[in-house]
Amino acid sequence: VINAGKSQHNEDQACCEVVFVERRPSPRGRLTSREGCGELDGVRAAEVKGFYFHYWALFDGHAGSGAAVMASEKLHVHICEQLRDLVDILQDPSPPPICLPHGPGDPTRVSVAEDEGEVPNDAVPRFHLEKAVSHESLVIGAIENAFKHMDDQIERERGAQPLAGGCRALAAIYLMGKFYVANAGDSRAIIIRNGEIIPMSREFTPETERQRLQFLALLRPELLGKEFTHLEFPRRIQPKELGKKMLYRDQNMNGWAYKKIEEDDLKFPLIYGEGKKARMMATIGVTRGLGDHDLKVFSSNIHIKPFLSCFPEVRVYDLTQYEHCPDDVLVLGTDGLWDVTNDREVAGVVMEVLTSYEPNDPCRYTMVAQELVVRSRGVLKERGWRLANDKLGSGDDISVFVIPL
Amino acid sequence: VINAGKSQHNEDQACCEVVFVERRPSPRGRLTSREGCGELDGVRAAEVKGFYFHYWALFDGHAGSGAAVMASEKLHVHICEQLRDLVDILQDPSPPPICLPHGPGDPTRVSVAEDEGEVPNDAVPRFHLEKAVSHESLVIGAIENAFKHMDDQIERERGAQPLAGGCRALAAIYLMGKFYVANAGDSRAIIIRNGEIIPMSREFTPETERQRLQFLALLRPELLGKEFTHLEFPRRIQPKELGKKMLYRDQNMNGWAYKKIEEDDLKFPLIYGEGKKARMMATIGVTRGLGDHDLKVFSSNIHIKPFLSCFPEVRVYDLTQYEHCPDDVLVLGTDGLWDVTNDREVAGVVMEVLTSYEPNDPCRYTMVAQELVVRSRGVLKERGWRLANDKLGSGDDISVFVIPL
Repeated sequence: VINAGKSQHNEDQACCEVVFVERRPSPRGRLTSREGCGELDGVRAAEVKGFYFHYWALFDGHAGSGAAVMASEKLHVHICEQLRDLVDILQDPSPPPICLPHGPGDPTRVSVAEDEGEVPNDAVPRFHLEKAVSHESLVIGAIENAFKHMDDQIERERGAQPLAGGCRALAAIYLMGKFYVANAGDSRAIIIRNGEIIPMSREFTPETERQRLQFLALLRPELLGKEFTHLEFPRRIQPKELGKKMLYRDQNMNGWAYKKIEEDDLKFPLIYGEGKKARMMATIGVTRGLGDHDLKVFSSNIHIKPFLSCFPEVRVYDLTQYEHCPDDVLVLGTDGLWDVTNDREVAGVVMEVLTSYEPNDPCRYTMVAQELVVRSRGVLKERGWRLANDKLGSGDDISVFVIPL
Repeated sequence: VINAGKSQHNEDQACCEVVFVERRPSPRGRLTSREGCGELDGVRAAEVKGFYFHYWALFDGHAGSGAAVMASEKLHVHICEQLRDLVDILQDPSPPPICLPHGPGDPTRVSVAEDEGEVPNDAVPRFHLEKAVSHESLVIGAIENAFKHMDDQIERERGAQPLAGGCRALAAIYLMGKFYVANAGDSRAIIIRNGEIIPMSREFTPETERQRLQFLALLRPELLGKEFTHLEFPRRIQPKELGKKMLYRDQNMNGWAYKKIEEDDLKFPLIYGEGKKARMMATIGVTRGLGDHDLKVFSSNIHIKPFLSCFPEVRVYDLTQYEHCPDDVLVLGTDGLWDVTNDREVAGVVMEVLTSYEPNDPCRYTMVAQELVVRSRGVLKERGWRLANDKLGSGDDISVFVIPL
């Protein structure tokens, strides 16, 4: 991670952890505890059951580092919490039960799960229509909800500590042979396997999420505070253009068509600009992320939430399905990297640096990450920081993980 | 097209046309007409300007063939109407104007477009932020709006004639070197080029559109008439299960998680079932299409629209970007084909049949289409219609176009 000058302090944060997911203590344990029989520790220790997951995450903060710092300290804890109820279910090879007799930690469950010595499981279809749900989709659901809980915590605690701003979040969780890559924002993850590039995320920006945002604005116009129109136009309309015909598109369209300009079209478009300059409500360039609960449109009382969503998209890569060599890696990077170095160039640097080290040298992956950061920063010349191709280097914070597969 | 027995009459309809898009008569022409100078015909004839498009479309009707018949007679007319305003713009290689001085057919436009002898064009950016819009995206917008106008026409005219029911619509438009494939429903288009399969559409079903539908239901709960919940569950919940925990997912989730069952969860799920049995509001298995304006949930006053959308997704294939041989084709088929014959099998039949005819035999493509239909129907054996692999043949209407590229 480096700060390349855009902000005074680094607003990128990173976290890397090995987390043990301990099965929630059973109610019987709690009962024993309350009864104070003194053997609790021994009983509890024997009951400790769980699994590990490996975790890497990048948080690209904006308007301060508060949200990014808190998310880097807590997101994996929320993921762990969501997984704790699933310890028995994920370790059981049979399909997850559709319905649990009662909630985990509920005495009724104990009578089934522990007194009969088995995990409750009603996976045998009892109805004509019953959808099979995989273990994998339970992990995805746990990660999705963990992002929501993380966002809620930032909202709750933002009064007590400096938590202004927000952050994009990109997390890679390795669990039971699979990588789960969760992305909320415009960071990016790619796998490079045998020289091939496999995208493991997509960016959430006003452009990529235009239709979702326009749909919400159409259905809940009060969220726009009479300042914005849900229609997109290729540029601002001037009052004197009333009655002329202009290109537009709405929530149903991917193409463009002409419409006669009406009074309402003079409002500012919900989505405006393109590429790195695209903005939602003239305020923010990403549409997913954590925090930003107090973010409003400049000099107005219009909130950016709920247009800004905290939910990630989770992609899964099954490591057991492929052979991997020491040069196969998962690269996570914030936009400080990707704005100036594309997928193909990143793959080139990975290949180049890895081959200059012994395959069993543990430093080689760190060296790739450093090299990616340094090349994206560029070198200071008379005309500013320049890349090898003489283009301007990234002025944004740059963070990179290179994870051997 | 064949009827394979599911309904008494064929509910699939097809259309294939070469359509001339004539530039709208100029207002000057109309003025001349009104002034009755008598030279109108000569003047108008000299003014005729336009272009052709080639058009193939399949309409898979349900609950009657009325909507499918009307759409097969009129959709290309609506596409033509949408394109008429774009004749000058699409034939001009410079980027489309963002803003037209005044609407086509408006006298002010004439003074610019014809008196100065050129197409109005303000494409030179006059503002810092001005999005470039391609000719291609104008055609896409025209097709999208044509589907909407088609749907509106069915709504308007359904009183006067038997237009109950609705239809899925799949249309391929060849225009200025590009194929535009527009799909609203669960028909499918694929290109087979040099043995490679290129998907040209995706299916719109309760499963593929779940999140859009759940989002709409959450924001407009009154559309559910207190009968449905926007949450998805793997099966119906029984009243006695209140308080237990069950798998669910909402509009933000792709994974699944457990929630405590509450009173509200006993309502019927908006999306229910999987695969061919998936239904929206327990009523319909597709989520895009034309017609169905009177379709309601059984014995209720709950309308399926606006959950059912008439807008297509349009994909573009640029024929000029690739070399094509006589065996490269675009295949359009209704679900009667795809339910029993997958992409790979269709490609196999295409290859097999085409190679048995001379490359310049114009019948060879028709023979492929016939063969695809016949093989998907199967042959009548003692235990019903059977495919070559002894599986049950398609009982649905089956329609196929095979179009040489």
